[in-house]
Amino acid sequence: MGSPIRVLVWNECRHEKVHEAVREVYPDGIHAAIAGHLGKQQGMDVRTATLDDPEHGLAEEVLSSTDVLIWWGHMAHNEVSDEVAGRAHTRVLEGMGLIALHSSQDSKILKRVLGTTCCVHWREAGEKERLWNIEPGHPITEGIGDYFELPHVEMYGERFDVPDPDKLIFISWFEGGEVFRSGCVWERGHGRVFYFRPGHETFPIYYDQNVMRVLANATRWAAPRIWKKQESPHVEPIEPLPQR
Amino acid sequence: MGSPIRVLVWNECRHEKVHEAVREVYPDGIHAAIAGHLGKQQGMDVRTATLDDPEHGLAEEVLSSTDVLIWWGHMAHNEVSDEVAGRAHTRVLEGMGLIALHSSQDSKILKRVLGTTCCVHWREAGEKERLWNIEPGHPITEGIGDYFELPHVEMYGERFDVPDPDKLIFISWFEGGEVFRSGCVWERGHGRVFYFRPGHETFPIYYDQNVMRVLANATRWAAPRIWKKQESPHVEPIEPLPQR
Amino acid sequence: MGSPIRVLVWNECRHEKVHEAVREVYPDGIHAAIAGHLGKQQGMDVRTATLDDPEHGLAEEVLSSTDVLIWWGHMAHNEVSDEVAGRAHTRVLEGMGLIALHSSQDSKILKRVLGTTCCVHWREAGEKERLWNIEPGHPITEGIGDYFELPHVEMYGERFDVPDPDKLIFISWFEGGEVFRSGCVWERGHGRVFYFRPGHETFPIYYDQNVMRVLANATRWAAPRIWKKQESPHVEPIEPLPQR
Amino acid sequence: MGSPIRVLVWNECRHEKVHEAVREVYPDGIHAAIAGHLGKQQGMDVRTATLDDPEHGLAEEVLSSTDVLIWWGHMAHNEVSDEVAGRAHTRVLEGMGLIALHSSQDSKILKRVLGTTCCVHWREAGEKERLWNIEPGHPITEGIGDYFELPHVEMYGERFDVPDPDKLIFISWFEGGEVFRSGCVWERGHGRVFYFRPGHETFPIYYDQNVMRVLANATRWAAPRIWKKQESPHVEPIEPLPQR
Repeated sequence: MGSPIRVLVWNECRHEKVHEAVREVYPDGIHAAIAGHLGKQQGMDVRTATLDDPEHGLAEEVLSSTDVLIWWGHMAHNEVSDEVAGRAHTRVLEGMGLIALHSSQDSKILKRVLGTTCCVHWREAGEKERLWNIEPGHPITEGIGDYFELPHVEMYGERFDVPDPDKLIFISWFEGGEVFRSGCVWERGHGRVFYFRPGHETFPIYYDQNVMRVLANATRWAAPRIWKKQESPHVEPIEPLPQR
Repeated sequence: MGSPIRVLVWNECRHEKVHEAVREVYPDGIHAAIAGHLGKQQGMDVRTATLDDPEHGLAEEVLSSTDVLIWWGHMAHNEVSDEVAGRAHTRVLEGMGLIALHSSQDSKILKRVLGTTCCVHWREAGEKERLWNIEPGHPITEGIGDYFELPHVEMYGERFDVPDPDKLIFISWFEGGEVFRSGCVWERGHGRVFYFRPGHETFPIYYDQNVMRVLANATRWAAPRIWKKQESPHVEPIEPLPQR
Repeated sequence: MGSPIRVLVWNECRHEKVHEAVREVYPDGIHAAIAGHLGKQQGMDVRTATLDDPEHGLAEEVLSSTDVLIWWGHMAHNEVSDEVAGRAHTRVLEGMGLIALHSSQDSKILKRVLGTTCCVHWREAGEKERLWNIEPGHPITEGIGDYFELPHVEMYGERFDVPDPDKLIFISWFEGGEVFRSGCVWERGHGRVFYFRPGHETFPIYYDQNVMRVLANATRWAAPRIWKKQESPHVEPIEPLPQR
Repeated sequence: MGSPIRVLVWNECRHEKVHEAVREVYPDGIHAAIAGHLGKQQGMDVRTATLDDPEHGLAEEVLSSTDVLIWWGHMAHNEVSDEVAGRAHTRVLEGMGLIALHSSQDSKILKRVLGTTCCVHWREAGEKERLWNIEPGHPITEGIGDYFELPHVEMYGERFDVPDPDKLIFISWFEGGEVFRSGCVWERGHGRVFYFRPGHETFPIYYDQNVMRVLANATRWAAPRIWKKQESPHVEPIEPLPQR
């Protein structure tokens, strides 16, 4: 409880370099918007990293001092090296929290952790989304009402190819007729994983008050309870075995 | 229902080449023992493949005509190529059943499908194992009583680093004092996965009547219900959207 | 496989007696519409029973020869006696399948089996519902596409107070803005349970082709795998215990 | 976080009145032993109640000021009135934590909350039990190692007739050859439920350091996150519906 949660906000940060429209919404990158909120407003110990940093900003010593990794990627998932994805995967199984945002359903790290394709149906038409809060007692929905709305979003529709979530937190209703499991949690190894659908590079989703509240709640929820290496030790019998 | 289930029994088949003791128990390899039972006695359409076959015997056309893949590996997991492991992984998510036996908890294919290390505690002391049937109504335990015993086994103990199974089928009691979740099922994508602990290269586990009954039941249970590629299609709105 | 599934379609059958509008849609009662489909068209061995029959038509000998109980109630849940609800509950735990339809989320039998209130939000405005098929590989959705629609329904919205389903089969989108977990399965004791939201006394839901297909699929899925009394036997040790 | 958790330790307290051997182990009753630990040593706000108190000590105003209810019963489950069991059940669904101990698997309250018989196999032979910690990262196992042992216990063996737990925390190994899911958690409504197997009226289980640590951890874990009545409100459409 004492020391603040050590958060690493990772952003692919390619859209921002290419598209003026993205820079207008997120002048310092999506990572800066999220980090600003979690750091200044929520008192967390926040760092950021991007794809084009050396080792994508995910060197061993960075990951080993990270409690919760927040991930945003979209157009360059395949440029994340297998080695770095594997390193983050290992760290999740040892206890690190992972929060994957929006198009990061297709990231190497989430797909490795879950073992499925995380495929979706999609459409970019700026329609309305309403996220229903299915678990009002869960720490991730603290302070969220029965539902909240986002006026203009990219749509993701079912079937979402993920393992059944340990807990389904949000279900989205879309103006165009689809539904989606928009907030899902899983435990893998000793780590906690949250997928949260909202987000986009040109819609200002990461300034929305409900989205940012969920993200802060989720970061606290995903903070490690223990750190433990995954190993397969040889062990001696506890009970005496007969001589053979 | 009409045509028989197309089973592929995959065996690493290295122990058999190196150790006389293994050849004595399984003169034609573990795969032959399993294939013999499922084919001749159970009427399935069974083929076999091994690590040292070209493409490990898992060429695209072989996998695409396989309903259920049974996997046994132990000492050479890392020699399975990433490409072939990925191909089998994809096929599971499209509908193929996967049954991983004993030390195959550490195989590339199972670890990719589940996303965890599948670590265990272990000991090779020839002790007694008693498998308790937790789900007497599940198709996998048809014909199995409250429990069955194996007189001499290699022990695997908890904690078993897997995602919570969709259904826990067997829990093992070991003479030396451990317990283990010995039969676990998961669904991933459109495929069904069963991990079954019993098995060894020198103990004659794959001649045991209960083990073979479970294996036959599980093969039937894991047979595909549908085949479906995992894709992320762009879709048009079903409901009319307002002009923007 | 040999003998047909023994289905009992139970209907409260009060609306039919009171409202002309209901009789127009279901002249012989909702139970007759469902029984007709499952019997004549699907070849099942179907009987019916209603609230006002002696023992509500659920005498011991009736239940003990029933494989799957389909339940429809709405306005008189509390008139079902505790004794009969308890009898059906016991039978489910011993292996009988239970399918609860629409307003039967508030029935004594479903609430006893699940242990929760099964509360919903609701509205009767004749709006459109679109049921998304989340599990295309599940036996219950065989022959159902990505989604199906019902033009005019009573709406049920989240939060639906049920235990997390073992498998979430359908999620509904409603024209008025809500979502709902419209198809849920659970296993309890040795029995299988399916809750299916569609249904109404004045909208002709039980003539819809997709609804009836799901109902037939679900009845086959819920048919017992085993029958087994739930008991707490005293047992002798299997392993010798030290003298004390 | 501020105010201490309000715990109510309920004890059937009949054994204590009848058997000298029980009084020797628990001179002031099992409830006093547990309450003493949670109150004095853990700083919780603890009250106790017993079967023979008016309304079993579970009047509306007592329950409505209770965060976590700890339950111990054995020989007189049926003497708990349906009304009081129903009242406690309702309170769980609204947010109250429930911890059921040992023979309380057969209590009215647990069976109503879970909806199953909670049947077990059993034997009273004073054998050894070893509880394996399957979830070292769960708050309930904080400070517990890979396993802990109890030298003399009454045995409960599988199959334990409960819904699949949301999380399986402990699996027991018994000297006589059985296994058991000894620590299980479920969420029902807004409340959290923990079943914990250890306990007995003549073995001094509730003085064991590991048992008491688990009990304190579980009480903190089960404390309510929200309080919310379960209701089925009529709601107006959020989106405009077409005129019909």
